[in-house]
Amino acid sequence: MRVRSIGFSTTICTYPRTPRNLHLFVSTRRYSHSDMSVVNRSVHPFDKSRLDALLNRRFFYAPAFEIYGGVAGLYDYGPPGSSLQANIMAEWRKHFIIEDHMLELDTTIMTPAPVFETSGHVARFADWMVKDTKTGDVLRADHLVKNVLEARLAGDREARGLAARPKDEKDKKRKKNAKTVVVQLADELVKEFESILAQLDNYSGPEIGELCRRYDIRNPDTGNEVGEPQQFNLMFASSIGPTGQHPGYLRPETAQGHFLNFSRLLEFNNGRVPFASAQIGRSFRNEISPRAGLLRVREFTMGEIEHFVDPEDKSHEKFREVRDTVLSLLDRHVQVSGSTQVTQMTIGEAVDKGIVANETLGYFLVRIHLFLIKIGINPKRLRFRQHMGNEMAHYAADCWDAEIENATGWTECVGCADRAAYDLSVHSARTGQPLVVRQALKEPIVTERDVPEFNKKVVGKTYGRDAGLLQKVIGEMDESQLTKLKGQLAQGQATISAEGKEFTITPDLLAIERKTFKQSIREFTPNVIEPSFGFGRILYTLLEHSFWCREQDIERGVLSLPPVVAPTKVLIVPLSAKEEFSPLVQEVSTKLRKAGIFSRVDDSNTSIGKRYARNDELGTPFGVTLDFASVQNRTMTLRYVCGGPRPTVGFSVVTRLTDLPSPCSERDTTDQLIGPIDDVITVLTELVQGTIDWPAACKRLPAYDGVQAVD
Amino acid sequence: MRVRSIGFSTTICTYPRTPRNLHLFVSTRRYSHSDMSVVNRSVHPFDKSRLDALLNRRFFYAPAFEIYGGVAGLYDYGPPGSSLQANIMAEWRKHFIIEDHMLELDTTIMTPAPVFETSGHVARFADWMVKDTKTGDVLRADHLVKNVLEARLAGDREARGLAARPKDEKDKKRKKNAKTVVVQLADELVKEFESILAQLDNYSGPEIGELCRRYDIRNPDTGNEVGEPQQFNLMFASSIGPTGQHPGYLRPETAQGHFLNFSRLLEFNNGRVPFASAQIGRSFRNEISPRAGLLRVREFTMGEIEHFVDPEDKSHEKFREVRDTVLSLLDRHVQVSGSTQVTQMTIGEAVDKGIVANETLGYFLVRIHLFLIKIGINPKRLRFRQHMGNEMAHYAADCWDAEIENATGWTECVGCADRAAYDLSVHSARTGQPLVVRQALKEPIVTERDVPEFNKKVVGKTYGRDAGLLQKVIGEMDESQLTKLKGQLAQGQATISAEGKEFTITPDLLAIERKTFKQSIREFTPNVIEPSFGFGRILYTLLEHSFWCREQDIERGVLSLPPVVAPTKVLIVPLSAKEEFSPLVQEVSTKLRKAGIFSRVDDSNTSIGKRYARNDELGTPFGVTLDFASVQNRTMTLRYVCGGPRPTVGFSVVTRLTDLPSPCSERDTTDQLIGPIDDVITVLTELVQGTIDWPAACKRLPAYDGVQAVD
Repeated sequence: MRVRSIGFSTTICTYPRTPRNLHLFVSTRRYSHSDMSVVNRSVHPFDKSRLDALLNRRFFYAPAFEIYGGVAGLYDYGPPGSSLQANIMAEWRKHFIIEDHMLELDTTIMTPAPVFETSGHVARFADWMVKDTKTGDVLRADHLVKNVLEARLAGDREARGLAARPKDEKDKKRKKNAKTVVVQLADELVKEFESILAQLDNYSGPEIGELCRRYDIRNPDTGNEVGEPQQFNLMFASSIGPTGQHPGYLRPETAQGHFLNFSRLLEFNNGRVPFASAQIGRSFRNEISPRAGLLRVREFTMGEIEHFVDPEDKSHEKFREVRDTVLSLLDRHVQVSGSTQVTQMTIGEAVDKGIVANETLGYFLVRIHLFLIKIGINPKRLRFRQHMGNEMAHYAADCWDAEIENATGWTECVGCADRAAYDLSVHSARTGQPLVVRQALKEPIVTERDVPEFNKKVVGKTYGRDAGLLQKVIGEMDESQLTKLKGQLAQGQATISAEGKEFTITPDLLAIERKTFKQSIREFTPNVIEPSFGFGRILYTLLEHSFWCREQDIERGVLSLPPVVAPTKVLIVPLSAKEEFSPLVQEVSTKLRKAGIFSRVDDSNTSIGKRYARNDELGTPFGVTLDFASVQNRTMTLRYVCGGPRPTVGFSVVTRLTDLPSPCSERDTTDQLIGPIDDVITVLTELVQGTIDWPAACKRLPAYDGVQAVD
Repeated sequence: MRVRSIGFSTTICTYPRTPRNLHLFVSTRRYSHSDMSVVNRSVHPFDKSRLDALLNRRFFYAPAFEIYGGVAGLYDYGPPGSSLQANIMAEWRKHFIIEDHMLELDTTIMTPAPVFETSGHVARFADWMVKDTKTGDVLRADHLVKNVLEARLAGDREARGLAARPKDEKDKKRKKNAKTVVVQLADELVKEFESILAQLDNYSGPEIGELCRRYDIRNPDTGNEVGEPQQFNLMFASSIGPTGQHPGYLRPETAQGHFLNFSRLLEFNNGRVPFASAQIGRSFRNEISPRAGLLRVREFTMGEIEHFVDPEDKSHEKFREVRDTVLSLLDRHVQVSGSTQVTQMTIGEAVDKGIVANETLGYFLVRIHLFLIKIGINPKRLRFRQHMGNEMAHYAADCWDAEIENATGWTECVGCADRAAYDLSVHSARTGQPLVVRQALKEPIVTERDVPEFNKKVVGKTYGRDAGLLQKVIGEMDESQLTKLKGQLAQGQATISAEGKEFTITPDLLAIERKTFKQSIREFTPNVIEPSFGFGRILYTLLEHSFWCREQDIERGVLSLPPVVAPTKVLIVPLSAKEEFSPLVQEVSTKLRKAGIFSRVDDSNTSIGKRYARNDELGTPFGVTLDFASVQNRTMTLRYVCGGPRPTVGFSVVTRLTDLPSPCSERDTTDQLIGPIDDVITVLTELVQGTIDWPAACKRLPAYDGVQAVD
């Protein structure tokens, strides 16, 4: 059994899910020769440490409580990071909530224990951990086994002369860190290890403990033995109110807040399904030892949609609008066959062929795809991977993860699961509140069935205080039992035993009659399709996809963020800090502000080019320059500063593998435009709002040749 | 000593702070005859229970975990409530962050204990509580004393025939709930009680316990005695990581996240002050027994700004832009004199006269004022109240609360405090990290002072291992001691005692010389001006200010929300659900969506008027109607549905006391406009974005007279 097998939003819940074969695929592919052919690889391949340094230096985000030494898995977003996140979330609201008229919610984080007892989180939202027997250090049990066995297999391959040379310095370092010992293993043992790794998710805690003993798996950092695996619940516990009698947990997902409000939401929607609720909010998971930056954190912001749908009709009215969209799909059959070959297919075909379970799920996969591309994720590094049978939660009908490739491999950034009726059913059972849809049937359903009719007076007289027991027993009989009893009564009498007592029944006590029932209301518990987004993971991968270096300045990075999400939209660059420019700077700055556009002035004492370069690191897409011509003629030049990789070598291999999406398609258009200040601001406003793109802007304003002045 | 005396954001932190005299003032004023004169009071005075019912029925918000029985002080926002909140926050970002180029942050909620030990929260962020000795019910100690003594004084007044008749049913009910017993008290006792109430904030827990014993103060719900007051820390506690060794707390304010990141923020701002950081985020306070709806909750969303400023220069460069704005000020001197008379004054005058401590504080008061009015708070029910000496935190230089009047009295919704250098200083002292600004001085400061110069060889030879002690003692001498010593040495020798030892010093051991020092860098810890917003309180009071009833339908309420914050902007009303209208409905709906405008279609089978009325409750400001003329001519009519109280009786007394702010100024303008569909959408877009108002719209589109068709 998998830990966390209950699988509530397995999204964002497990390490980047990289089955072993996938992992190998990635590391081979990323550096394959065919990829290399498009660029001069020697210039500077993508360097994660360089990006990380930029993000830290410019305060996109940083370890929280840093001056107190920090806490693993907790991060603070600085100005560019939080603006970027806010812009991503604003776009999310527009793309999902407004576009599909979803019902927005904002529910509570601090949750009383009974809610998560019911949902199963208290019992099962846990990972297995082991303790170093000497230092007390805590390790996640499955990760320990994986790391140690993989290292031994690597050592074995090296001993057999099969290992690839380290690809680069980083690869060498990684190998060293993995503490690979070059020892050849028995052929038998290699097979055993490979088999264990392939089914690691299937082991229980005690079984993992058994593996540690059998193969002498120790803490690689210390060489010490580890203790017996213990379950560790990943929810942060607290207590509500002053008496300490009300245990509470910080929610590990926002979903339960939707389910508990189901009846109110349904009423708000006039009692009709389908409808979707949506929520952006913070969730918390007390991870055992998070070490993967924003990809694995203890506190994170999610966006969750719960689309409630008739279990018998999962069609979607807008499916026809998306059915021709092509997605990269990696279905479960391909994975089970040992391949990771992605198929390009329209969602229409995928649903028709039954690869994707239903239209609603298909519709959301496309919407997720479009959202991610709109904010700047490289579509060629995005795929939808279906959960395999053994990794899917027991109640789920189907589940697809949007995985985005980054330096650590393919990372699950959005999950899209069909949670069926699980959650509503368990909460309803626990609270006694009906969480159902009642639908008037167009055609009432007419049924006939046998019904027991007691002569209560006679029954009471005959059986006294056992009368109730008798009626109860008969009342609970099913159709076939009643038919049998009816037959016996027709022959004179019947005998029934209950709780050690025997009842003789005659037709004067009981008549069983055929009656007609008309059902005009259909009552059902809706199913739930749940797209669930981890904004931190999306934000980090977006930064990776946007990062490159200019040939002339490899020390400084560039972030080509689409204008719609860029933290600052416009850099205002006066020729100098001289006073003659300041009224104009003030004017432009104020006008942009009034248009709701976040700009930044750089009037520092250095060349215009340097100033632009410095702001490349912040991903500011547009720049306007104010010079003497501006003062004389009230004109201003406009450029698209870091719209995308320039058509030379000098950007990262990974970025170059695929072109960046549309915002960067201006590569061959004019570099700089000029126009009257107000016209430039009008064009800028439309560029930022996304109503026009750069080529359209080039048609609206004349090109600037470096000398031309516009009257 | 006040509990919570450390006073971190006393904003949002205490019950609506209504000094007793204020409270009386409010209850008198609200029903005074002069107010009544403007409306026919008999129609329907403001009824909080009616508003509460609307908010619950239409799912603006509801108790969280309701199907599990709910938890006091925790609320979930439904679709209209969370959209309203999101729109208020979006406007906040625009109004504060973008307008003033603030540095946005998004920091962590789960905080390791040392941070709050340093800030003082662990020791002092607490309330005193008492337990009912029999039932174990927990009560907040100061509230208990206040309620019981006030009830006794009320009973006394009634016994003396001084009490006012109950003003209405509600008043009667309130009196009954207060369990007023009509008993005349000794004159002496009345004075004692009044004196206690006036200084309740000054009692310590043990003193409150003493009061309970002396005056036999019991739990009014049960009549039982209460135990000794105990301190209850209001932070939710938890534990970080799997070992349980790292205690953590949920933050009770977002401010510490700003302070801990100060150095990064300063660097981001190129080392210069002033600058402001800003953050919207969730905070948590484990209130003892919250019972005031959204006005006192255990989990809430705040917006906090920390404006870092040179302690020696708290001027503000944009102060001149706001200095003529008139605010309603209630300063501390007026309050101390026993009055609550608000003064209307320009902020320029208030700062010039020293009523408001400095320009920066004044600037923010105006910005807060403008923000609240923009989102729809009635300016006549908004005032700024200065903290009195005894309620202000010990480190604060000045503090003003934006208080908004509502049915429960004047409620603190925004606090604006000068936190001085307290937080940065304590974190710096604890962590050893300098949290300072280093500023190059234009004119270096040149100083001269005496400096001891040892002949180390001789000192070592003379005093051996005591040489260090001697050097330390002299090194720690102040200016005057050194001057004295210098004089003694000039006369031959000096004697110094330290740790029971005596040292004879001669000029060959030590020379004291005058040296010149040049300081070219000034280092200082900035002060912090902190505007702190409680969005839940603002949202609730806004709903109260927006609520009224139409004369013709007193059962149904209307919410006149400004378009900028209204949850749904446009109601689309086709003449009927007939198929001929659906392509147009679809078209208009899609076009509005593309323009980023949240609309809602009501094609239910009832009259257009009824449909508009039903949507009044959701505060949807605009409506468009599609009829046969639309199909024929592609025209559409537009109306401003619930823009404000209609010019008749039939709205709440409280709302009518003052006109609603500008969004409602269209009262006398045309009711309905007509135009080609695309033109109407263009005008609508501008109305929603707030770039034009309704009168301007009336100039752009012809009035609709009920028959006219536009070609």
